[in-house]
Amino acid sequence: MKETFFRSKWVTPPEGCVENDPAELASGFLAAGIPCGLKADGKTDLGLIHCAVDEVASAILLTRNAAAAAPIRVCRDQLEQHSIRSCVINSGNANAATGEQGIRDALEFRGGVAERLGLEAETVAVAETGVIGVPLDMDAIRSGFDGLVENLATDGGVEFCKAIMTTDKGPKQCSVTVDGVTVSAQAKGAGMIEPGFATMLCFVQTDAIVEDADGQLRRAAADSFERITVDGQMSTNDTILFQSSGLSGKPMPAGLLEAVLLQLAIEVVADGEGATRVGRVVVEGAADDQEADMVARKIANSPLVKTALLGRDPNWGRIAQAAGMALAGDDIGELGPDVIEAEDLAGEAAEAEIGLRLDRGTGTGHIYFSDLTHEYIVINAEYTT
Amino acid sequence: MKETFFRSKWVTPPEGCVENDPAELASGFLAAGIPCGLKADGKTDLGLIHCAVDEVASAILLTRNAAAAAPIRVCRDQLEQHSIRSCVINSGNANAATGEQGIRDALEFRGGVAERLGLEAETVAVAETGVIGVPLDMDAIRSGFDGLVENLATDGGVEFCKAIMTTDKGPKQCSVTVDGVTVSAQAKGAGMIEPGFATMLCFVQTDAIVEDADGQLRRAAADSFERITVDGQMSTNDTILFQSSGLSGKPMPAGLLEAVLLQLAIEVVADGEGATRVGRVVVEGAADDQEADMVARKIANSPLVKTALLGRDPNWGRIAQAAGMALAGDDIGELGPDVIEAEDLAGEAAEAEIGLRLDRGTGTGHIYFSDLTHEYIVINAEYTT
Repeated sequence: MKETFFRSKWVTPPEGCVENDPAELASGFLAAGIPCGLKADGKTDLGLIHCAVDEVASAILLTRNAAAAAPIRVCRDQLEQHSIRSCVINSGNANAATGEQGIRDALEFRGGVAERLGLEAETVAVAETGVIGVPLDMDAIRSGFDGLVENLATDGGVEFCKAIMTTDKGPKQCSVTVDGVTVSAQAKGAGMIEPGFATMLCFVQTDAIVEDADGQLRRAAADSFERITVDGQMSTNDTILFQSSGLSGKPMPAGLLEAVLLQLAIEVVADGEGATRVGRVVVEGAADDQEADMVARKIANSPLVKTALLGRDPNWGRIAQAAGMALAGDDIGELGPDVIEAEDLAGEAAEAEIGLRLDRGTGTGHIYFSDLTHEYIVINAEYTT
Repeated sequence: MKETFFRSKWVTPPEGCVENDPAELASGFLAAGIPCGLKADGKTDLGLIHCAVDEVASAILLTRNAAAAAPIRVCRDQLEQHSIRSCVINSGNANAATGEQGIRDALEFRGGVAERLGLEAETVAVAETGVIGVPLDMDAIRSGFDGLVENLATDGGVEFCKAIMTTDKGPKQCSVTVDGVTVSAQAKGAGMIEPGFATMLCFVQTDAIVEDADGQLRRAAADSFERITVDGQMSTNDTILFQSSGLSGKPMPAGLLEAVLLQLAIEVVADGEGATRVGRVVVEGAADDQEADMVARKIANSPLVKTALLGRDPNWGRIAQAAGMALAGDDIGELGPDVIEAEDLAGEAAEAEIGLRLDRGTGTGHIYFSDLTHEYIVINAEYTT
């Protein structure tokens, strides 16, 4: 049986949404993914997404981490962010904490591919993911330039998605159509996940006509990738790239971009390192939305709540404690089962919802999070630089 | 071989410090610990510390958690904090999130013992630790009132310390003498540990003459219990009680209180739930001390750094990432091994020091933390309300 892309109970796709083969990109886009030798096991580790239309509209969100990696710095400082035609990516090496050489390497990477595509380098983004602090193997990267361009295909979505994966258990990708508008997207992410701007790598292509790419992307990310946490760690390399070819001649169907990003974000949580379950904590009655968000994050990042999600323990006391810590110095009284819903933790469902009603105002917020398991420790106590 | 109390490489006791049997309290103090039936296994769970001298000097630090437990509220609102003669304690039940009944129970607990001691209830503190959200078994508590008072002894330190333990692997206690002044102390804590005010239960008795109990305790706690983290979770019940009988007729020897609290705080980290190693992260060159402290906490609470401590992985990239997250929105460049010391992580020593030198000012700070292990998950995915 084919698995449905929109499978979270928290996601509602627009009416009439049809799911295509995830390899099929939105009209006007091509992609490729090939192995170049960065990953020791010979898996696909080099990728390229490309818009064949000159008048592309685009927006990009980059991590706010103060020790950002070379590709982030290149995209921040040397990129025409609203007319990004292509993006080169590699997995297996984050090109982070690699100094001036890292910047030069990132520039050479995108420059080499841009030249073969006949593009200005400033219209090509670069994204990298993998280990931190190891110089990029540029011989391997260079060996893939020709292959990347030669392999570009309109049904290259699946191969491209393979190229961005690191500790992911599986691909996170889709191609969906509503009213003649297609959105295709590919994401990765399993560890170092905490809401920042963007949080991992995510590429979204559409043939909708997009007037305000920045605004559309920011709003959709605010309700999806900015609301997830695996281990509370903001990465040095997080990037979301949104590109539109406009070839459908129609505007973006209401709710489509939001549904795609939310499903992908939940998949990133579900595939969090070692994760077996996804929780959503909803906080109501906070002083304002910002406070609700902050309290929800403290609960979602509490290792005690995360192990309760694993242990199927409806331990509302840990939710009360985390909320009290979030508002330390204040007094919110003793929170009990009359204002905390934790029963879902005990259930068998893969998605569990917990709730907290404060009595401070009308602010609301929610965060998606994963459980903390033995496998997280195995992965991170053994995965070394 | 008798184990030395001052055994951390980070603690320097004053010259001429003699370690006594930890059962022996400072002059003027008596203590007791008995089982009353709160702990299912019949272990000691009820305790009393008592100063026989009327002119006691005291100070108490209480958690800032906004959902503080009943005993915290009683100590905050209905206690003569600078003349605390006695403190009743129980383990096995935190009397947290127990509502008005919890307050009544805490008041009855201390009131019953105060009456038998012939004291005003307002001079008796109450501290409780254990599961959250379960009403206190007052029949069990009441059954111990007489036994507590009858068992008071000047060498009751060890029995008292047993009464405060929950998931602790062993007691954290001492009795030390310098220049005729004795300090005895008992602490507990293994989970829900993050720097707040006080962070767990800790009782300190001395026969030194103490003029400014509040100031002495706050300064010593600021460099010890406020600098530790096990799981980043501020408890609902944290309490440190400091009492002085003044019977030695001498002032507190310089550095003695600080050394005792620091060693106890490090022991709390070393006995953190599932912990096998203790790390200390030192941050220098921050904009100010507050920033250094904040960055050090982010590093110490990162599950990626904590699993690197477990895995003996000198993974400086994770330290760079956590520091960058702490200062998100700013730009601190890419941090590399020239400014990060992580080699100690790889060693065999039980205490590992890591360092980060920023280039933003002269602020310094440090935090003690434990590793994140499988046992933490076993304890917390199975330990249920």
